Amino acid sequence: MLKNDSFLKALLRQPTDHTPLWVMRQAGRYLPEYNATRGRAGSFLELCKNPDLATEVTLQPLARFPLDAAILFSDILTIPDAMGLGLYFADGEGPKFERPLRDEWEVRNLTAPDPTVHLRYVMDAVKSIRRALSGSVPLIGFSGSPFTLACYMVEGGGSDDFRHIKGMLYRRPDLLHRILEVTTEAVIQYLNAQIASGAQAVMVFDTWGGTLTTPAYEEFSLQYMRRVAEGLTKEAEGRTVPSIVYTKGGALWLESIASAGFDAVGLDWTINIADARKRIGDRVALQGNMDPSALFGTPEIIQQEVARVLNGFGNHPGHVFNLGHGISRFTPPENVAVMVDAVHSQSRQIRL
Amino acid sequence: MLKNDSFLKALLRQPTDHTPLWVMRQAGRYLPEYNATRGRAGSFLELCKNPDLATEVTLQPLARFPLDAAILFSDILTIPDAMGLGLYFADGEGPKFERPLRDEWEVRNLTAPDPTVHLRYVMDAVKSIRRALSGSVPLIGFSGSPFTLACYMVEGGGSDDFRHIKGMLYRRPDLLHRILEVTTEAVIQYLNAQIASGAQAVMVFDTWGGTLTTPAYEEFSLQYMRRVAEGLTKEAEGRTVPSIVYTKGGALWLESIASAGFDAVGLDWTINIADARKRIGDRVALQGNMDPSALFGTPEIIQQEVARVLNGFGNHPGHVFNLGHGISRFTPPENVAVMVDAVHSQSRQIRL
Repeated sequence: MLKNDSFLKALLRQPTDHTPLWVMRQAGRYLPEYNATRGRAGSFLELCKNPDLATEVTLQPLARFPLDAAILFSDILTIPDAMGLGLYFADGEGPKFERPLRDEWEVRNLTAPDPTVHLRYVMDAVKSIRRALSGSVPLIGFSGSPFTLACYMVEGGGSDDFRHIKGMLYRRPDLLHRILEVTTEAVIQYLNAQIASGAQAVMVFDTWGGTLTTPAYEEFSLQYMRRVAEGLTKEAEGRTVPSIVYTKGGALWLESIASAGFDAVGLDWTINIADARKRIGDRVALQGNMDPSALFGTPEIIQQEVARVLNGFGNHPGHVFNLGHGISRFTPPENVAVMVDAVHSQSRQIRL
Repeated sequence: MLKNDSFLKALLRQPTDHTPLWVMRQAGRYLPEYNATRGRAGSFLELCKNPDLATEVTLQPLARFPLDAAILFSDILTIPDAMGLGLYFADGEGPKFERPLRDEWEVRNLTAPDPTVHLRYVMDAVKSIRRALSGSVPLIGFSGSPFTLACYMVEGGGSDDFRHIKGMLYRRPDLLHRILEVTTEAVIQYLNAQIASGAQAVMVFDTWGGTLTTPAYEEFSLQYMRRVAEGLTKEAEGRTVPSIVYTKGGALWLESIASAGFDAVGLDWTINIADARKRIGDRVALQGNMDPSALFGTPEIIQQEVARVLNGFGNHPGHVFNLGHGISRFTPPENVAVMVDAVHSQSRQIRL
């Protein structure tokens, strides 16, 4: 029923006639039409919580560029918000929680929200986006990783040193494990509810796992993502539902990440994709990994950087092109068009 | 003449009876006596520019803990300040430049400052600290890496996306190379002037090289650090002057960093030091790499983390213990005492 299933095929390492691509944060502030809708919504959170507007912004980048997948427009912090922590956005400051988790009593009382009740607005958005896409390209659902969610929950917002969660990790690892247990359960239910609502692939964003030591990454981040991979619904609508895991700053641990049970590993821009492929072979598909800043370059530079990534991966199945991190709000949209065109045309050439 | 030369010996991979240690940012805001001196100085910059007060704060951690080296108290941005960019510190905001480098004309006119004239206050501080140390432990001089200095110079301060310098890297690499050429010359002269004034080892801090792609790291950061290594004075006062290079987030590129011409490589906390040693053998000494957040732990946890690093390196010459990044201002000083004691006593045990 899907007109373009190249993205799903590539995640399962099946041959495609071109390298499919999408862009992390493709529905976002670099698009004037996004800013217009957000202006109408009133705030970022109202935009996320309104299924019609979430559908509208999800489809905006697809109207501009022939991308091979759509991704649910939502926030990474919907789960802790549904747990009662009180998500809000202070002007120009990023996400904050009214009630960060620091206290033993609060940790003991934490429970996983029922996604079909407390996160129903997300499921409504997934259904509405699926209808609006009407089989053009697949829809990606997503969640933050348990550790990344815990970072925001314990810090009460973003951080440049993560001293509260790391203090807990070294002083009260039992409390942190309890938070991660509950959050892991919540992530599994949340992603499976998205799949039940129509998500055709899912991605776990581990934005902050890369700030840990090697053993702490294994114990506090990767271990729980492995459980998420195990708990995921594997098939829906008669199709495999592929899964992607992405740890920013995780290139050092690529072998372990590739063994965590996901179909694909997202790479940030620091590692050469050729080296990544050498290290893990074709055990999993790879997604990535152009430097988002390369989109500040001239068309020639963008085409060169696309070529570097495509040729680095080589002529094998199992590559989804993407940036190595979310697109910058300062990106000229016409440069995205150059990249999309270069990925499609160059990858068709490579396959000849 | 040095009473304790264990630090210099370890950097040259000579045997020592214990693993020497110092702490990145050891003279800093976690010490009440530092905050008192800073209060008297009026501002951070006045503290840096007053050789008597810089001497006072440099010695404060040594009065508390039996550390094996002192490090010059100064700011990483003294070179661009001496180039005329106008360094200032906005309240609670970190360093800023009044005149960031964005314009081609400004870049073409950039010149390396004469460190004995424009940075004389640093040389006076080095001389004064050497006198005050009177041979107890060696004094480390330091500089930011050319790329890291360029980041601040082009961004005009700290950044979370580095979009100005990365925009320049992808749009006008010729301009960025010009900045890096001049800055490399400045770093060499600056470090050599510190050595001539009495610094007995030097360290290059590449705080932001880890935000680059693999080829861009080689072209815009490592290449210039290699030139710095070549240009450094190798001997002073009849002794070898060892050099250390540190790239935060550089674990992926460890082999290339270890071949850049420095005597030692500083590791951040993300990599297991055992894996680092496996990858580079005894080509260079290693410095690091306990997680600074482990100092928020209990004494038992701190001792365990010290053991993990010491045992990870193993019973070989060539290890300087340190944190993997600067110490947090929220660290209880008594936990530093636990770490220092654990490093000295455990490493003496390992050598038995």
